[in-house]
Amino acid sequence: MLEKTMRMNYLYDFYQALLTPKQRNYMALYYLDDYSLGEIAEQYEVSRQAVYDNIRRTEAMLEQYEEKLGLLRKYERRRQIIERLKDYISRHYGADAELAALVNELDELD
Amino acid sequence: MLEKTMRMNYLYDFYQALLTPKQRNYMALYYLDDYSLGEIAEQYEVSRQAVYDNIRRTEAMLEQYEEKLGLLRKYERRRQIIERLKDYISRHYGADAELAALVNELDELD
Repeated sequence: MLEKTMRMNYLYDFYQALLTPKQRNYMALYYLDDYSLGEIAEQYEVSRQAVYDNIRRTEAMLEQYEEKLGLLRKYERRRQIIERLKDYISRHYGADAELAALVNELDELD
Repeated sequence: MLEKTMRMNYLYDFYQALLTPKQRNYMALYYLDDYSLGEIAEQYEVSRQAVYDNIRRTEAMLEQYEEKLGLLRKYERRRQIIERLKDYISRHYGADAELAALVNELDELD
């Protein structure tokens, strides 16, 4: 997956609740279901340009939310530490199922 | 601290970046610095009612953001597991400074 597509997938995941239903639909079709702009335009009976503009504006909104709230940034930092923690525990306390379960609970929260 | 005040402090903490500067100022004075509505009104040369309305609207916005993004809810769940993890580690691996440091890193992210 292209880096931008992956980033938009993440940002969409974190901030989709703040978008309008139309923005959500276009973004989901384009980024999650890999529809082309033309296919979305056809389905919604609007111009390809209108779909393009809407998606570009939504992308900018998602980046603005990320700038303000930093949910992806924080998520990535958390993931990094959780991975180090899991790695450390499996190397040193691999037999402790209770400890592993606690870390897994944390791992599955995100 | 009253329960509502504490909740608003948390919500403000999570979502303040999404408020306007005026909303931020009123909320900070009222909830963080414990100014009265009258004192804020005097400082901004507006009516007490205007301050009251603005703060009530901002509170509703913060609750809407929480409903959509759930940052406080997720934070509380994460805290709970981290506390159990710290407790477990201090009881079973109290001498392992490296393990404690990793969990502390996680603890300090929020």
